[in-house]
Amino acid sequence: MSDSSRSTQRPTTTPGSIRLDPWLDHYAERTSGLSASEVRALFAVASRPEVVSLAGGMPYVSALPQEYLQQAANIATSSRRSEALQYGSGQGIPQFREQITEIMSLEGIHAHADDVVVTTGSQQAVDLMCRLFLDPGDVVIAEGPSYVGSIGIFRSYQAETVHVPLDDEGLQPEALRETIARLEAQGRHIKFLYTIPNFHNPAGVTLTMERRREVLDIAHKHNILVLEDNPYGLLWFDRVPPEAIRSLDGDGVVYLGSFSKIFAPGFRIGYALAPHAIREKLVLANESAILSPTTFGQIMISEYLSHNDWRGQIDTFRGVYRDRRDAMLKALDDFLPTLDKTRPNGGFYVWLSLPEGFNSKEMLPLAVRELVAYTPGTAFYADGSGQDKIRLSFCYPTPEEIRTGIERLSRVINRERDLLETFGPGRAHGEDQAHLVTTPPPNTN
Amino acid sequence: MSDSSRSTQRPTTTPGSIRLDPWLDHYAERTSGLSASEVRALFAVASRPEVVSLAGGMPYVSALPQEYLQQAANIATSSRRSEALQYGSGQGIPQFREQITEIMSLEGIHAHADDVVVTTGSQQAVDLMCRLFLDPGDVVIAEGPSYVGSIGIFRSYQAETVHVPLDDEGLQPEALRETIARLEAQGRHIKFLYTIPNFHNPAGVTLTMERRREVLDIAHKHNILVLEDNPYGLLWFDRVPPEAIRSLDGDGVVYLGSFSKIFAPGFRIGYALAPHAIREKLVLANESAILSPTTFGQIMISEYLSHNDWRGQIDTFRGVYRDRRDAMLKALDDFLPTLDKTRPNGGFYVWLSLPEGFNSKEMLPLAVRELVAYTPGTAFYADGSGQDKIRLSFCYPTPEEIRTGIERLSRVINRERDLLETFGPGRAHGEDQAHLVTTPPPNTN
Repeated sequence: MSDSSRSTQRPTTTPGSIRLDPWLDHYAERTSGLSASEVRALFAVASRPEVVSLAGGMPYVSALPQEYLQQAANIATSSRRSEALQYGSGQGIPQFREQITEIMSLEGIHAHADDVVVTTGSQQAVDLMCRLFLDPGDVVIAEGPSYVGSIGIFRSYQAETVHVPLDDEGLQPEALRETIARLEAQGRHIKFLYTIPNFHNPAGVTLTMERRREVLDIAHKHNILVLEDNPYGLLWFDRVPPEAIRSLDGDGVVYLGSFSKIFAPGFRIGYALAPHAIREKLVLANESAILSPTTFGQIMISEYLSHNDWRGQIDTFRGVYRDRRDAMLKALDDFLPTLDKTRPNGGFYVWLSLPEGFNSKEMLPLAVRELVAYTPGTAFYADGSGQDKIRLSFCYPTPEEIRTGIERLSRVINRERDLLETFGPGRAHGEDQAHLVTTPPPNTN
Repeated sequence: MSDSSRSTQRPTTTPGSIRLDPWLDHYAERTSGLSASEVRALFAVASRPEVVSLAGGMPYVSALPQEYLQQAANIATSSRRSEALQYGSGQGIPQFREQITEIMSLEGIHAHADDVVVTTGSQQAVDLMCRLFLDPGDVVIAEGPSYVGSIGIFRSYQAETVHVPLDDEGLQPEALRETIARLEAQGRHIKFLYTIPNFHNPAGVTLTMERRREVLDIAHKHNILVLEDNPYGLLWFDRVPPEAIRSLDGDGVVYLGSFSKIFAPGFRIGYALAPHAIREKLVLANESAILSPTTFGQIMISEYLSHNDWRGQIDTFRGVYRDRRDAMLKALDDFLPTLDKTRPNGGFYVWLSLPEGFNSKEMLPLAVRELVAYTPGTAFYADGSGQDKIRLSFCYPTPEEIRTGIERLSRVINRERDLLETFGPGRAHGEDQAHLVTTPPPNTN
């Protein structure tokens, strides 16, 4: 049968009619995994000024001094102008990659600039890794919960994310062993272990050094590549976290870092450090995807690093986020003392466990009515888990706003708990309240 | 059979041994299409200062006034600082997308900012389109020759590029009909027609208005989406080119534009204009790949467009490139009068036909020895064609350098022609000269 019969299938879009997609039968199979993330929908809801948003992961960029930026911009638009305006290499500017190795050395990594690839945020580094390694049906092992953005990328490559639980010491090695054994018995192809060892997003916990060694040992034994995603490692509060997993092994770990949290996300500059053969392929994949990362952005950050006390600036960021973490834990202790939560030593997030029977996604409209937003736990699992969890971000609002937000949240939770105890789950989270997400309430309540 | 047997397959890399890739059996199938492009290898060779490079496609960014850039940078680092440093939306900044519709209107396109998606250069827009539409084994129809970067992307998605020949009036409609009929008879899935209608890269030709209508009509009849890539359209020299294909059809065309040639490539900002349903998917795919395009870069360009005579600046670029085109055509007329070439009315490239029996790839080391570089024609075909063609770029070198470069090239070609006439093809392009690519000659010869 000839394919010319398909030419009759394209509906004509008449003005005023319901919009049909005439290309519906043309999309690639992988687009079935493409859907708006729960975090994305939340950005819209939580952007109203009267809502205290504990939902997003926006860094507090106002802590970056304006004069640092202006100095860097002056250089990028004058003495380094012809370089900053031009195409660059797909790997990134050599001098800038040298500076990146200096930053990584703070976490125990001794690397050569030749093994670094600059990417459009570390999000793109995850995407490029998937492009290199994932065939449809492959498996990525990740902590449960894990970063919503990466889970979405794995899905878009038609791979399955299989979660391994974590606790206060991070990923559980014994559970990792069991998961691998089960997957291998099923003949599945495990392509890599995706892990966020420091100040986990969303769980807030940190993998201990003992477990880093154990996880790496397991990965070696089973020939599994480790993809170490570390955007928050330098933002510790009370004590320095253990050195990077990459510091223990140069051949079996691809390490991802980012300037979004220690400088600013608006430049979209992240990086990957990879074993030589993988690095070569990453550069080719980067060139294929975007030709080269922004030279202007690389030079802005490179000049910032050259002329300013960037270590001191990281200390400043640490102080800002420490105060906010303190405010959030104190408010949770005061207003929701009976709920389990993680106590992060760095990063942006607290992971809160709701009372049994709660559904955090269904509770969200009630929270927004109370003028506080959070991210429901289900966003951070590929398998529908996390219904009774929520992620609380302390990175962007002030300590006062955080306290207000947690107080509002406690009112919602306590009211729901009363309803749940009196009437049971059916009443407390009825379908009749689902419409509240799309029809926001009047300003105050 | 359990997959645990794979754990024994990972070779240990011992220090000092030849570097093996322990992850060789882990890569995705699509990586087999990942290879260094011929253009990439050339960047290295041609970057030596004594070589006149007619190979690259680097715009002449020095024509952009420094004060324009500094004003934009001042705003991005002061009044719009908090926006410029932060994450943005995956679609791009609304005000900037409005400005993009204004630019597109210069080519006859009447569009809504809501249908525009900002990307990391238009290269990424091609990549995202492939992500949405291409399954392994699908077909993309493209002009023969076509842009080397896009051919590489199609290959990386395991799609086949099928070429349709072009002539001085662009893509040949009759050949397009025949190609589609043949592919449909074979039951192949044609996902889109990729075309560069204006000042084609590498061919330098422009699709006539009559053929635009005819090509669109053919695409409609066969239910084939048109991907119109137009980075050079505003850089015309002698007469305005026909209006964009997209101006004739809003439902069946995805249109790609770029700031790389009318502003600067260092910011990596391009855009796609797409029918609504495709646009929605492009935004999701963009968020998955990079979260959001650089806000700092978008604001720099947006402020440039707001405060400066950007139309006048495009006129300046036109003047620069017109002079260079004139210099190249004059030099070719003077030094290589018998060779066929295209006479571009805009853009960056002339497409030169070598005498029969020539192999432009094998001749390249001889040209580099003569201190001139070009891009061999085979780079622009997916099927090995183009051996007797070369692409000559006039965008970056000065008119004087262009004349010097063409004179050097004529010496190489004339010497080769003499050898070819005397001894036949076997002698003129022996394998014994292939090593010259990797072992550059002493400085002068």
